[in-house]
Amino acid sequence: MSTDKDRFLTIFNQISSSLLADIQSLPGLSDSLKSQLTTYYSTCLPYTVPGGKMTRGLTVIKGVEVLKSRPLTDKEYTDAAILGWQVEWLQAFFLVADDIMDGSITRRGQPCWYQRPNVTQDNAINDALILENMIYQTLRRHFKGHPSYVGILELFIDTTYRTEIGQHIDTNGTPYAEGKRAPLDLGRFTLDRYRGCVRYKTSYYSFYLSCALALAYCGYSQDSEEGKALYGKAEEVCMRLGEYFQIQDDVLDAFAPPEVLGKIGTDIEDAKCSWLVCKALELVNEDQKQILVDHYGKHEEEGVKKVKELYKELKLEELYHEYEEEQKKACDELIASIEPESFRDLFTFLLGKIYKRQK
Amino acid sequence: MSTDKDRFLTIFNQISSSLLADIQSLPGLSDSLKSQLTTYYSTCLPYTVPGGKMTRGLTVIKGVEVLKSRPLTDKEYTDAAILGWQVEWLQAFFLVADDIMDGSITRRGQPCWYQRPNVTQDNAINDALILENMIYQTLRRHFKGHPSYVGILELFIDTTYRTEIGQHIDTNGTPYAEGKRAPLDLGRFTLDRYRGCVRYKTSYYSFYLSCALALAYCGYSQDSEEGKALYGKAEEVCMRLGEYFQIQDDVLDAFAPPEVLGKIGTDIEDAKCSWLVCKALELVNEDQKQILVDHYGKHEEEGVKKVKELYKELKLEELYHEYEEEQKKACDELIASIEPESFRDLFTFLLGKIYKRQK
Repeated sequence: MSTDKDRFLTIFNQISSSLLADIQSLPGLSDSLKSQLTTYYSTCLPYTVPGGKMTRGLTVIKGVEVLKSRPLTDKEYTDAAILGWQVEWLQAFFLVADDIMDGSITRRGQPCWYQRPNVTQDNAINDALILENMIYQTLRRHFKGHPSYVGILELFIDTTYRTEIGQHIDTNGTPYAEGKRAPLDLGRFTLDRYRGCVRYKTSYYSFYLSCALALAYCGYSQDSEEGKALYGKAEEVCMRLGEYFQIQDDVLDAFAPPEVLGKIGTDIEDAKCSWLVCKALELVNEDQKQILVDHYGKHEEEGVKKVKELYKELKLEELYHEYEEEQKKACDELIASIEPESFRDLFTFLLGKIYKRQK
Repeated sequence: MSTDKDRFLTIFNQISSSLLADIQSLPGLSDSLKSQLTTYYSTCLPYTVPGGKMTRGLTVIKGVEVLKSRPLTDKEYTDAAILGWQVEWLQAFFLVADDIMDGSITRRGQPCWYQRPNVTQDNAINDALILENMIYQTLRRHFKGHPSYVGILELFIDTTYRTEIGQHIDTNGTPYAEGKRAPLDLGRFTLDRYRGCVRYKTSYYSFYLSCALALAYCGYSQDSEEGKALYGKAEEVCMRLGEYFQIQDDVLDAFAPPEVLGKIGTDIEDAKCSWLVCKALELVNEDQKQILVDHYGKHEEEGVKKVKELYKELKLEELYHEYEEEQKKACDELIASIEPESFRDLFTFLLGKIYKRQK
């Protein structure tokens, strides 16, 4: 896997170099301005784009491989990797913007981009927009004239739109953030809102987009009958995988040992719209509810402990394990109904990365 | 002209209705979430999109009219107006984001969108992104399959990119804003940076885009030899018009009577990278420079007065009038070299709106 990542990263360097060269050829700017811009973005791109697990990007390559059912040619690998990197660029755009909106401090173990002294929030908002736009610059450079060019553009545009809708639902569902909208309104933590938020904010861009790009690259069009069914099936599986992944993420945040998880969960302190709090609110009696009213969304060790004890009392971990087995079964069945058969391997691969993960 | 605007505004209502209907048909959301989203955006769109002079949008219609050299059919009018509204949507996206970045209070005589109590900055950043994305939703709805569809998409993508580059140059060139980066570094107010900033931040989206869209809609492709020359000529004129317009704007900000201008200029107080301060810094002696060091970028009536007296001492208004006549002459010559001849009327129309304007 580390060579997979290394090979993938060489494509990042090629894409970055082209984007920086574009800046050098902008008309009507002095050499001094062009060199300032190039210096700035040659720091920004490696800081904000790679560095995660890169699962979204690598999934595009995996998807093209299973659809072709044979090792990829160099050209096919490069094309798939370029598409994969655009998903990573999309994620970088979202994360830079989200960190500003959430007032976050660190990301991937280093200060958030907007927290860097030479960046500041104003530049960072604009940098997020530039990261987004670079996707379309790169897609044009490599895929203009490709029969799927318009389809690929539309996948990125629609996924962006849906993720932004998810962000709207999420922001409007977390009424308490940095003291901006007190007091905390637990009434908005419903499973209904939770599901809408996860589907739109996470599942489309983290699961569906990579799979759909592999389909588009391999010639399946959403405008054909066959294509429509296949994209529809991919969407159905991905929405389920995305929800399962996020619920699991929420459970791990509260219950996984920090030394295994690699971070200390703070969803309770941050008043996150977590599956745990939504589910708890469906099950609590009045006394138990008071524990959430008193302690949810506060940075107090004792209070966090009490919330976690309540989660245990309500047997949320057990409920989660039941949910997990149901999801696994439902996914297996859904995947078994996908045609062409070769395409099933992509979803089995994704499900394998999620099922019973510990971190 | 008021009927022109009324007719144009009916198309805004049609576009908005379609976008709100799209939200109603999003899959996997409860009726309650869909209705919250629809309510929110049915306030956001009329608040942020129309309300300006709408020159950019109306210019697309004018452009298609001069290229066709005849009255437009209803279908052609609607198409051109839809494209025109996308320029206004692009502007709304920029203004919502810029107002956050600049910490502005009012826009078009009402509170900035992010200042509204039910919005807040976090939502507003996301709303700017949603406004941007809506452009591509609307373009697809109306122009997918049109021979210029990809060309139109690319015009919006490239204009967005260039405007964002301009914003970067501008933000990095205003080192003093709300005490965030003191002290004010006058060394960055150079005409070189000024020109780069105006070209990228203003001219492309305020002048060139509307003209280029008219060309694209009328079948001229940037990929053909004939098209390339025509877009190139349009760009050349628009870059000149944009710079002239902005310099004029800067001069009016300092010298136009507020009752004529319709607002009180505050470029000096806000430490703006204005043509006046850039030009002044080219002409000052040490004593005069000290006036700028002491008083530029401060909200003090007496200091502002001193800066304006310095501008008068340096005869900047006279220099501006010379510049204006040169620009007028250069534009007339450039316009006279455009083929097809009919297309000249569009630029004459734009120049007529700018030359010797008082507000």
